[in-house]
Amino acid sequence: MTRKLTMADIEAAATRLKNWGRWGADDEIGTLNHITPESIVAAARLVTKGKVMSLALPYDSAGPQGAKTNYPPLGRFNPIHLMLRTGTDAYSGKLDGRGIRTTDDIVIMPLQCGTQWDGLAHVLYGDKMWNGYDCRSVSSFGAEKCGIEKTREKMIGRGVLLDIARLMGREVLEDGFAITPELLEQAEIKFGVRVGKGDFLLVRTGHVEAKLNAKNWDGYAGGDAPGLSFETLDWLQARQVAAIATDTWGVEVRPNPSDEVVSPFHWISIPIMGLTLGEIFNLGELAKDCAGDGRYEFMFVSPVLPISGAVASPTNPLAIK
Amino acid sequence: MTRKLTMADIEAAATRLKNWGRWGADDEIGTLNHITPESIVAAARLVTKGKVMSLALPYDSAGPQGAKTNYPPLGRFNPIHLMLRTGTDAYSGKLDGRGIRTTDDIVIMPLQCGTQWDGLAHVLYGDKMWNGYDCRSVSSFGAEKCGIEKTREKMIGRGVLLDIARLMGREVLEDGFAITPELLEQAEIKFGVRVGKGDFLLVRTGHVEAKLNAKNWDGYAGGDAPGLSFETLDWLQARQVAAIATDTWGVEVRPNPSDEVVSPFHWISIPIMGLTLGEIFNLGELAKDCAGDGRYEFMFVSPVLPISGAVASPTNPLAIK
Amino acid sequence: MTRKLTMADIEAAATRLKNWGRWGADDEIGTLNHITPESIVAAARLVTKGKVMSLALPYDSAGPQGAKTNYPPLGRFNPIHLMLRTGTDAYSGKLDGRGIRTTDDIVIMPLQCGTQWDGLAHVLYGDKMWNGYDCRSVSSFGAEKCGIEKTREKMIGRGVLLDIARLMGREVLEDGFAITPELLEQAEIKFGVRVGKGDFLLVRTGHVEAKLNAKNWDGYAGGDAPGLSFETLDWLQARQVAAIATDTWGVEVRPNPSDEVVSPFHWISIPIMGLTLGEIFNLGELAKDCAGDGRYEFMFVSPVLPISGAVASPTNPLAIK
Amino acid sequence: MTRKLTMADIEAAATRLKNWGRWGADDEIGTLNHITPESIVAAARLVTKGKVMSLALPYDSAGPQGAKTNYPPLGRFNPIHLMLRTGTDAYSGKLDGRGIRTTDDIVIMPLQCGTQWDGLAHVLYGDKMWNGYDCRSVSSFGAEKCGIEKTREKMIGRGVLLDIARLMGREVLEDGFAITPELLEQAEIKFGVRVGKGDFLLVRTGHVEAKLNAKNWDGYAGGDAPGLSFETLDWLQARQVAAIATDTWGVEVRPNPSDEVVSPFHWISIPIMGLTLGEIFNLGELAKDCAGDGRYEFMFVSPVLPISGAVASPTNPLAIK
Repeated sequence: MTRKLTMADIEAAATRLKNWGRWGADDEIGTLNHITPESIVAAARLVTKGKVMSLALPYDSAGPQGAKTNYPPLGRFNPIHLMLRTGTDAYSGKLDGRGIRTTDDIVIMPLQCGTQWDGLAHVLYGDKMWNGYDCRSVSSFGAEKCGIEKTREKMIGRGVLLDIARLMGREVLEDGFAITPELLEQAEIKFGVRVGKGDFLLVRTGHVEAKLNAKNWDGYAGGDAPGLSFETLDWLQARQVAAIATDTWGVEVRPNPSDEVVSPFHWISIPIMGLTLGEIFNLGELAKDCAGDGRYEFMFVSPVLPISGAVASPTNPLAIK
Repeated sequence: MTRKLTMADIEAAATRLKNWGRWGADDEIGTLNHITPESIVAAARLVTKGKVMSLALPYDSAGPQGAKTNYPPLGRFNPIHLMLRTGTDAYSGKLDGRGIRTTDDIVIMPLQCGTQWDGLAHVLYGDKMWNGYDCRSVSSFGAEKCGIEKTREKMIGRGVLLDIARLMGREVLEDGFAITPELLEQAEIKFGVRVGKGDFLLVRTGHVEAKLNAKNWDGYAGGDAPGLSFETLDWLQARQVAAIATDTWGVEVRPNPSDEVVSPFHWISIPIMGLTLGEIFNLGELAKDCAGDGRYEFMFVSPVLPISGAVASPTNPLAIK
Repeated sequence: MTRKLTMADIEAAATRLKNWGRWGADDEIGTLNHITPESIVAAARLVTKGKVMSLALPYDSAGPQGAKTNYPPLGRFNPIHLMLRTGTDAYSGKLDGRGIRTTDDIVIMPLQCGTQWDGLAHVLYGDKMWNGYDCRSVSSFGAEKCGIEKTREKMIGRGVLLDIARLMGREVLEDGFAITPELLEQAEIKFGVRVGKGDFLLVRTGHVEAKLNAKNWDGYAGGDAPGLSFETLDWLQARQVAAIATDTWGVEVRPNPSDEVVSPFHWISIPIMGLTLGEIFNLGELAKDCAGDGRYEFMFVSPVLPISGAVASPTNPLAIK
Repeated sequence: MTRKLTMADIEAAATRLKNWGRWGADDEIGTLNHITPESIVAAARLVTKGKVMSLALPYDSAGPQGAKTNYPPLGRFNPIHLMLRTGTDAYSGKLDGRGIRTTDDIVIMPLQCGTQWDGLAHVLYGDKMWNGYDCRSVSSFGAEKCGIEKTREKMIGRGVLLDIARLMGREVLEDGFAITPELLEQAEIKFGVRVGKGDFLLVRTGHVEAKLNAKNWDGYAGGDAPGLSFETLDWLQARQVAAIATDTWGVEVRPNPSDEVVSPFHWISIPIMGLTLGEIFNLGELAKDCAGDGRYEFMFVSPVLPISGAVASPTNPLAIK
């Protein structure tokens, strides 16, 4: 699309794609309802070679936060890992008299600093949020509605990789590259897989790998990126995916295809459709494996940490073949 | 066993059960090496009804830390969840001008404050740790060896529940109740399952449920508990389990069956055998389900957060049937 | 006063004592404006024996937070002090190659967990705060108005101790003991000092000392306490004190002398009068010294940490004679 | 000095300047012992115009940490200030039912991230620290010896400003500019003040102001800087200062005047002499005031936060004239 999105486009999409009430007035998990016992059983059947791949970046000071950016900072920082007791304490005799030599540690981390799930309390629409709940449900006390802990048993199903970078014959898609529904369908054909109900759709742009290779995260977190176009929202709704995740910081294409709103895909996906988003997934190893065996589907398990009232969660997504 | 364990018993067990070098001089994951592609495929085959059960406690201020205890404090506290931006900010107009209304949050948490995996860097043996590494490898900079991130693709396989509370006809085993190899084998017979190579063995005492029902964690974290006897170490070694987890804070029975050492099971399991331990698992719902369908085996996926150099990790363990 | 305070009493006090606009429409420090260069010079003249007394409790895990209470928790906890590098690391050779052996540390602390100043952004009145500012000025981004950093050069002047416990011949006043204007004036006469414009008034109840002696903080933080009666607000206004501090957690008497509001003294003092409050001051040593030399006035310096946008600050108050 | 310092120079200085035992075998505060009741009384006499100047930088995300540097990172970051309850919560009705509308907050901060005192446990000398204590006294449990809390009543006395930038006719001294004893004495003559026993010596290079003016901290924290030469150690010892503070991140000149050790001034000042160092002081306003009235001495009060076992402390230093 060449013309810029307007507020009227947003509102039209909100009307067209609104899933409020679809799973009951008290639903707090949205499209994760597309997952069924049958889809879980079917996903498990995809495990045939016993190979497990982690799609998480390491959580540490080399993570994507804190690099240079031209956009306003979001207040996120890389995990701070600190020790409560160490082997050097033990060696120095400071644990003598305890009867055992143990170590202990702690982490301080924004829940969206690395590989992570956006929960449904993360984005608001006016004074409302998912399912029509009042946005004031998310206060300093956390999210009374749609906290990430509500999804504790949900992040499991069939994973499908659509490797758009490979489809385009590139190592990485450029910033501003908009992935359209047409491209998603071309990828389906090329990779021999069809996205369907209850699937976890993983879309690869090569963005994380490019930054890892460059050993420089400048411009990544909160910045420009390749990503899903606004038009894919209807496609995702039609296909009834459980969730979508990418290797970018924010799933959608950036610079914003709008002069009126920031992150238009987020305006609709989370609060209107109830669509959970996964971000900063490292899809490199998985992409190589799929290219190698020609199988772009797998069992996918990516549990949240059930932090009560959280609006997001770090996760270690596992693709199992 | 009625007599108290002595340092000589510990040393004999260390000699008898030492797995150092068994998986190479540079191994950092110990008994998780028992997991094979075949065991993963077999585990996935156990998924027949598409039911997922989370074995994690909520991570919040109602967690088990900070309650009364007669033992020295370990410096652990319940997760502190704080907001960086809220829906009340949005409602108050404080996010206007951003072009989107989003919320954000952060957590501060000891890595062993709730449902969690002990990594192999958590317990030292003299000036050594797992596989003979120097204990000074765990310094204020974190664990150079055996960091929890080394297990990022490992926490998956067959789960087996041995419900010792049910075996004994009790809701909860009493503090100091020692679970012996004989009891484990009686449970195998009663529940129709045999623990084997690469399994994740879950042992239920009812301890977490009893504290939840009482709405009072006094005496739990760091305190007395039912648990595995020291003698089960040989049994676990023989059965070649990948890992063991329980619903107590520390797996092993307490008060300590020794006047000379604290937590003797820990002295051997982690640094000598390389056996990963899971603690504070909530096994209540799973136990009911197993009793209901008579199947005490299931697919088990419990990924760590790959925090670089961490000695432990919170986890949301999923039992999938 | 035996009858309970009503909302009408609160509103009447708000009308009677409101200082909004008194120091200009853009004032953010309230009664700290009573401090003048002359009062600072005069305070310095009180330094005659060169004795310095700290009125701060240690900031550590033995602090007053986290003990048992019958009131709702306020989310405060004791300071968490953690090391980034240690002498045990150095001893273990982990700092070799750096060219110097240094240690480093970090603290995580609620700003009101120990000895502390309440800033003027700490208490709101309806949808307003001090000087009539909109209460939404205090958002997740901190206090845009009345942040504690505005007082960075203000916490200095004459300190006056009114030792009410000593006046009453007791080690500690009992919970619920209301300190009236009459008692304050009796103390002035007994101790030979008169509270005046720009003074920092310290009122001793013995509460901190009693808890320290008992080695048990149960019931202290957020709980019942001796303290200032609501009636003292008019007296404090008349005397034009710069600030008031006590050895209790919340200055005012508790249980609340009202069925309609909680902490009525706070409703008026901070948002209406612009009166800064100091809490959890340890006045024991100072009280002994004053009793010894008969001088209940001294130079008082208690700088805030200028944390931008903070609503409170820890402080190490120094009384200098 | 043009030749580089060698380890032999360090060792010679350690022998020559060692104050271990000078104030008793159990001393933990070093040169702060130079402060006497008389020096405090004399300092108070310097307060004649009632003007208070804060020498602290704001503690916030605009602080000096996290900027670009060519040196290894020290693990320090700017203060993280977070809200526990806000005015936007109040406005949104989330505090209704509490009976009062209050806000609350928290800070996470390395103790050396901004304006701060280095305590005597911050630098070690071999396996020893100040007064000959074992360096293992500083473990993950904090500093058993020389914790900053030991200085809680000590940071008060006469302050003397030597404005070396002004002496040299510059706004800021260049990185690598070494301030020699000769320059300090020239400054004494020019500014009409003589540094003596128990003084707090403040040395201005213009470094903080230059970075503030540039709105860019690149290269500041942990980087090159103007500063005290190694030779000033003998001078400081002779003059018997209580402490020294500057507007640089590390007091001493950098690049290091040595190929063998990093920060040679630190090797001797803290662990050998017992000299407390103040860093990242903002001396701009004070310097203007001193130039204006020609008085380079003042009362100086800069209390530490008595965090038990801390190796450093943030501080809000007040210069009072």
